[in-house]
Amino acid sequence: MEALTGEEVAKLHQDYVMQSWHKQGGKAMPVKEAKGIYLWDYDGNKYADMSSLLVCSNLGHELPEIVDAITEQAHKMCFMSPAYASEPKSRLAKMLVDVAGPDFYQRVFFTNGGADSNENAIKMARMVTGRSKIFSCYRSYHGSTLGASFASGDWRRFATEAGGEAPSFVHFMNPNMYEDGFDRGVDDEKVTKLYLKRLEDQLIYENPYNVAAILMESIVGANGVILPPKGYMEGVRALCDKYGILMICDEVMAGFGRTGKMFAWQNFDLKPDMFTFAKGVTCGYVPLGGVVVSKKISDYFTDHVLQCGLTYSGHTLACAAGVAAVSYYLDHDVCAHVKKMEGVLKPFLESMVEKHKCVGEARCIGLFAALTIVKNKATRELMAPYHASNSVMPTIMAELKKKGFLTFGRETNINICPPLIITEEELNEQLPKLDEVLTWVDETYCG
Amino acid sequence: MEALTGEEVAKLHQDYVMQSWHKQGGKAMPVKEAKGIYLWDYDGNKYADMSSLLVCSNLGHELPEIVDAITEQAHKMCFMSPAYASEPKSRLAKMLVDVAGPDFYQRVFFTNGGADSNENAIKMARMVTGRSKIFSCYRSYHGSTLGASFASGDWRRFATEAGGEAPSFVHFMNPNMYEDGFDRGVDDEKVTKLYLKRLEDQLIYENPYNVAAILMESIVGANGVILPPKGYMEGVRALCDKYGILMICDEVMAGFGRTGKMFAWQNFDLKPDMFTFAKGVTCGYVPLGGVVVSKKISDYFTDHVLQCGLTYSGHTLACAAGVAAVSYYLDHDVCAHVKKMEGVLKPFLESMVEKHKCVGEARCIGLFAALTIVKNKATRELMAPYHASNSVMPTIMAELKKKGFLTFGRETNINICPPLIITEEELNEQLPKLDEVLTWVDETYCG
Repeated sequence: MEALTGEEVAKLHQDYVMQSWHKQGGKAMPVKEAKGIYLWDYDGNKYADMSSLLVCSNLGHELPEIVDAITEQAHKMCFMSPAYASEPKSRLAKMLVDVAGPDFYQRVFFTNGGADSNENAIKMARMVTGRSKIFSCYRSYHGSTLGASFASGDWRRFATEAGGEAPSFVHFMNPNMYEDGFDRGVDDEKVTKLYLKRLEDQLIYENPYNVAAILMESIVGANGVILPPKGYMEGVRALCDKYGILMICDEVMAGFGRTGKMFAWQNFDLKPDMFTFAKGVTCGYVPLGGVVVSKKISDYFTDHVLQCGLTYSGHTLACAAGVAAVSYYLDHDVCAHVKKMEGVLKPFLESMVEKHKCVGEARCIGLFAALTIVKNKATRELMAPYHASNSVMPTIMAELKKKGFLTFGRETNINICPPLIITEEELNEQLPKLDEVLTWVDETYCG
Repeated sequence: MEALTGEEVAKLHQDYVMQSWHKQGGKAMPVKEAKGIYLWDYDGNKYADMSSLLVCSNLGHELPEIVDAITEQAHKMCFMSPAYASEPKSRLAKMLVDVAGPDFYQRVFFTNGGADSNENAIKMARMVTGRSKIFSCYRSYHGSTLGASFASGDWRRFATEAGGEAPSFVHFMNPNMYEDGFDRGVDDEKVTKLYLKRLEDQLIYENPYNVAAILMESIVGANGVILPPKGYMEGVRALCDKYGILMICDEVMAGFGRTGKMFAWQNFDLKPDMFTFAKGVTCGYVPLGGVVVSKKISDYFTDHVLQCGLTYSGHTLACAAGVAAVSYYLDHDVCAHVKKMEGVLKPFLESMVEKHKCVGEARCIGLFAALTIVKNKATRELMAPYHASNSVMPTIMAELKKKGFLTFGRETNINICPPLIITEEELNEQLPKLDEVLTWVDETYCG
């Protein structure tokens, strides 16, 4: 098959592909090649992938260890269905339990991605507890299939609700210290107390003994890397224990070294009963997701039929990619590297708060970071109010792109989540571009 | 990494993998190798895959053309996110539209598998029509995520409903001529008239102008390859037209040559407004699914934002596998081969009805076939009543497996859906095993 030109790739995309979250018929940049932290268009322009695409390319693009594992497995056996055991599936399940902690965790249910991981965790929580309600955060995103979407908090949920809301999904407001008017490092205790009180009140008014699970991103990702105040997550865990509620952590974005720990919940003094994963487990090379469950949940299903299933559960090629990726994280101590790079990224982002009128707050844990862009720092007026049509943020992203710095952001945030293999030199090469664009934002929008 | 033994693979699976639709801790056969229509366990036993696993391995296992496409693409670029155009995604979208008919169809929304294909088709139907209700069949299965599961008819839906039913999903009874007591080829007109009248009545009582879509498997698959009576599907299309309802065909199992047509709806005199696909598009080698939409639906989304999305939409490696698979179907005229093999399989299965007390009906279109197993042919008493705990059918499957004939069935059916590349010789080698087991069933259970 003769290779298409960049123009042909772009034209066919424009004419035949349904583009997510957009009107159709727009232009999408055709990408020819990707390697490490970079990707190239068909005109030879080079871009740094400073968001790991959608926070999935944790080990960068075309990592030889994963590519080799895929090609090797492809020649052996691409796919064997869930009813049969296969080496990559068996191996990856044990690896994930070992990394999570085999004292507490026991089994893995594999899915295709993040949304269906959360779907299945929700189903399991209801089966195990015999309760129906799922509590989840307004400031969250868990996927776009019906169940994952109902559990999601941000406005991407609205379209799903057009068919009427499913019962038993309850949303609560999780803290966003900056936007709520508090100061991080000063007000943590107060905010934690306040928000846990609010959550417990809401649980009580909803009947806590009919709440199956509280589902939360360990650290809220797409909505702006919202770091919880100190003690908050542990407090949620305590509420779960108090009322016999399961705690499900969504590790789809935050997992696999992103925060400097293999799983982001390991930053807190707690263990979720289940946690969901996707993205970083294969770095997106082959679609894969799943749920790691505790011994207690696993035990429940030795006596009860697990009413969950999908054709590609434990997909052979995907699990082989997963084995290679997880081995790489461990063998190369990627988490240690991430903590080191945090030492570069975090001070830089904090200096941006000092320097720029438009930067309200910087949040950074590991290589999981976001800046809150404001119009007015004194009043904390956001550049893009929630769910308002606003062209400034897309313009900022376009300015960054012009400089070869690719990232994304939702609402009033710029996310900075580069591949975890980024070097200090690469960071130091890219970050000044952000500084320059922020200066331009100061001048253009913060007059 | 040193290869595991079969025992190790099996033990790790037993201890660490959450097994779909089962109690945990059972034994699963470890599969070492798969090639063509065969797979092998670690003891060197060879099995014929007479169900294409879960009716997905349409082109058999390890087809060199698909394996090569995967390895080639893996070395170029495994994954690029939905915002960017990539050659395999662009190419596959056009190929699918071309095969479906570019006079009527325009675009493809890509997903990871069958369930999320149906989820997104449902969302789109609601957006386009501004209506909420989704009609679907009791005798059906569309996936296990919340929306796909609510749309599904068989009992795998029940666990999902534990959290309370989502509104706006309405089920109607679709015909199963044999189980309903009619004779195929004799009563078709009567049954079609009766069931269409019932469906229209139900639409009217549900307000047809609030029905967004009727979602149906083009040919009901997992529930027993239920062939609709002549004229029924066209009648459903006519009802859709009458009330401005969209028709969505689920081609997840039936698509990609399975019935001797590239898409199963092409067996009828109709065009669905959207159809969903998965499985056969890559033969499961890499997870992929999607929705093909009409020009009219595509046009709606040139003015309206498509509120759908997922990280792996248009996955690069998956689309490359899809391009190779679809090219193979077309270049090798797989459909013509399937029609030829139908000429072997169908008469054989019909002869089983003549010969065996336990075979009530044989249904076969292309290489999509099932036998209804009965206890009593005169009364049509089913061997396994619907959703009753019954050990006979699993025992039959186990007897077939002992002979190296692997397949599955739900309820009272044995599905026979071998890879489409099966040869006449291979069919003639495998089918006598089925005959032998049916004789054993006659003697054991139809006394």
